[in-house]
Order: sequence, then C-alpha cells, then structure tokens
Amino acid sequence: MIETLSIIVVEKDRDRALLIVDALREAGDYKITVIGEETGLARRIAENRPDLVLIDLRSPSRDVLEELALASGPMDRPVAMFVDRSDTGLTRAAIEAGVSAYVVDGLRPDRIRPVLDAAIARFHMFSRMRSELAATKAALEERKVIDRAKGLIMRAKGIGEEEAYGLLRKAAMDQGKRLIEVAQAIVTAAELLR
Amino acid sequence: MIETLSIIVVEKDRDRALLIVDALREAGDYKITVIGEETGLARRIAENRPDLVLIDLRSPSRDVLEELALASGPMDRPVAMFVDRSDTGLTRAAIEAGVSAYVVDGLRPDRIRPVLDAAIARFHMFSRMRSELAATKAALEERKVIDRAKGLIMRAKGIGEEEAYGLLRKAAMDQGKRLIEVAQAIVTAAELLR
Repeated sequence: MIETLSIIVVEKDRDRALLIVDALREAGDYKITVIGEETGLARRIAENRPDLVLIDLRSPSRDVLEELALASGPMDRPVAMFVDRSDTGLTRAAIEAGVSAYVVDGLRPDRIRPVLDAAIARFHMFSRMRSELAATKAALEERKVIDRAKGLIMRAKGIGEEEAYGLLRKAAMDQGKRLIEVAQAIVTAAELLR
Repeated sequence: MIETLSIIVVEKDRDRALLIVDALREAGDYKITVIGEETGLARRIAENRPDLVLIDLRSPSRDVLEELALASGPMDRPVAMFVDRSDTGLTRAAIEAGVSAYVVDGLRPDRIRPVLDAAIARFHMFSRMRSELAATKAALEERKVIDRAKGLIMRAKGIGEEEAYGLLRKAAMDQGKRLIEVAQAIVTAAELLR
C-alpha cells in the first residue's frame, strides 16, 4: 500500500480502544480515529470518509451488530468486525449486512494486518461485482427505452429498425445529447400525445 | 443446520489432518473426508461434491494457493482456507481466487465453527449476486434478440410494436416454445434469407 490508510475504530471501551490502536500501529502506517460513542455514528463515519472501519464488539446482540455494520457504510468502504463470540445466526447477519471481514476471538496484534488485507480485497471484489450488476441493469433499462423509441419512430415513419436507430443517433448528435436522453424524450412525448 | 454437512479436508500432513478432523468433530456433526494428495484434486472434489472444502496450508506459495483454491471449485461450494502466515499479495490472491474464508494462524478447534459459518454465509451471498448478474445479462441478451425479431416483423408487416410483439407471443404459444426461441429463429431466418 502506498498511501496511508485512514481507519476509524469503533470501540466503547477506552482500554480496549488503546490496545487496538497499539496493535494497528504495530501492523502498519495508518491514520487512526477512535469513536467511542454510538450516537451519530453513521453521520460521523460518512463525514470522515475513512478507508476502512474496524468495529470491536465484545458480545454482540444481533440488533447492535446490524446497526453498527450498517452505520459504517459497508457499501462504501471495507468494514472489519471483531467479536469475542458468535453463533451461526450472528455470523450470517454480519455478512448479510455487508461486513467484509468477520473475525471471532482474533483481535491479536499479529492477526490484524491479514484481516484488514482480506477485508479490503473482499470489499473490492464485491464492489466490482456490484458495479457490474448495476451497469448491466442500467443497460437493460436503457435498452428498453431505446427500443421503445425506435419502435415509435419505425411505426410513425414506416421505416426499418436500422434506419430508425440512425435517426435516433443523428438527433442525439445534433442536440449534443446521449442517445438514451433523446429516446426517453420520444417515449415521454408519445405517451403525452397519444 | 439440519442436514449433516459434508466437508473435504485438503491436508498433506497426516498429523495435522488428524488434528483438523478432531477439531471438526468437536465443532459439529460433519461428514469428513481427508484428501492428502494434490494430484487429481479437482476431479476428486468434483466427484465427491462436498458442501464445503477446508484447505490447510502451512506456508503457501502463491501458485500452490491459487491452484488449490481453484481445484476446490470456489464457485460451486464454500472454500475455507487456513494458512499459518500470509502477506497482502497472498491474501488478495486467495480472495480473488474465490476463497470464501481466508484465515491466518487461526486453526484452533474453538475457531473453526465460526469460520465455516462465515464461509457458508459469504458463499451464499456471493452466489446470489452471481446469479442475479447472470440473469440480468441473460435478460439483456434475450431482449436484444427479441427486439431484433420484433423489428423484423414490424417492418415486414408494416405494423406497430405491440402488434408485432403479440404475433411473436402467439407464435411461441402455438409452437409450445419460449418467446426467445421463436425470436432467435426469426433473426436467424432473416439473416439467411436476406
């Protein structure tokens, strides 16, 4: 890693927070912020925009675990969660909530670094998939609109598909707009005018 | 878990394999198979179709790690990998290879269960996303073919989009086929006949 990673540590217990900070300082060159208060956590994390959130929970209840996980913005950054004990339901809840690394009884100085590495790698892999899914969904939606517009032009002018598509493209170029914007305008107009 | 999970343990070292089997027996009710040979691993795992693969590697090289991860079929089942030491590159390689849980220096009887739980939860989450992505991509591809067929019908018959779609649907119903199959046939025919 070339840049210094900024990490927010969420930990109520002061002594334990100090231990974690020490462990992080041993593990690498991080910019560390400790948050001990759970109130306003989501806002503070969102404002701080850390590269990673590390949550330590001694004996988590499912509600607290899910709240903290979501407050940390697991779609926006890796979240590593350390707990002292867990069960199948809790583990599943943490992972479904988007936690990138969930570690039971493993908050030891020499273990932190690989967990953070894994959380970051996992987060990036997940992000890539999410982006690909979002892009594919958007392409599908755009295609529906473009094809609808194409169909309207074909019918209105009695022309073929390629010609209709050509007209759409030309209109978009002439107006300096994206094809989807012109298509959307045509679909909207047709709905209003019929 | 209601059913007994079947687990394949990949471990060369006999003594260590016994320790892992003991740890698993303590952790839950599993059907355990140990594979000590790396030759033919992929085939043996594919034939055995376990619910989970547990790989233990003392000091992995990147090549061995990736080979074992891929041989375990990480798209078909959760793969949990335990290593004694790692670095950022190895950790990333393991996760990119599809390993559902990657644990450094954590193969202790009381830690195995939460790791397996996490691996299973992670695998299911990932599988769901992969299925959704595959379904969306397929929908996009199907849409392209259906719209192409619709366009051909509209042009040939000088009719509107909805009417063309209706004809496609009717043809599919009459022939007891899926819409996409009829559409594909029309596109193929049009390409051959033009």
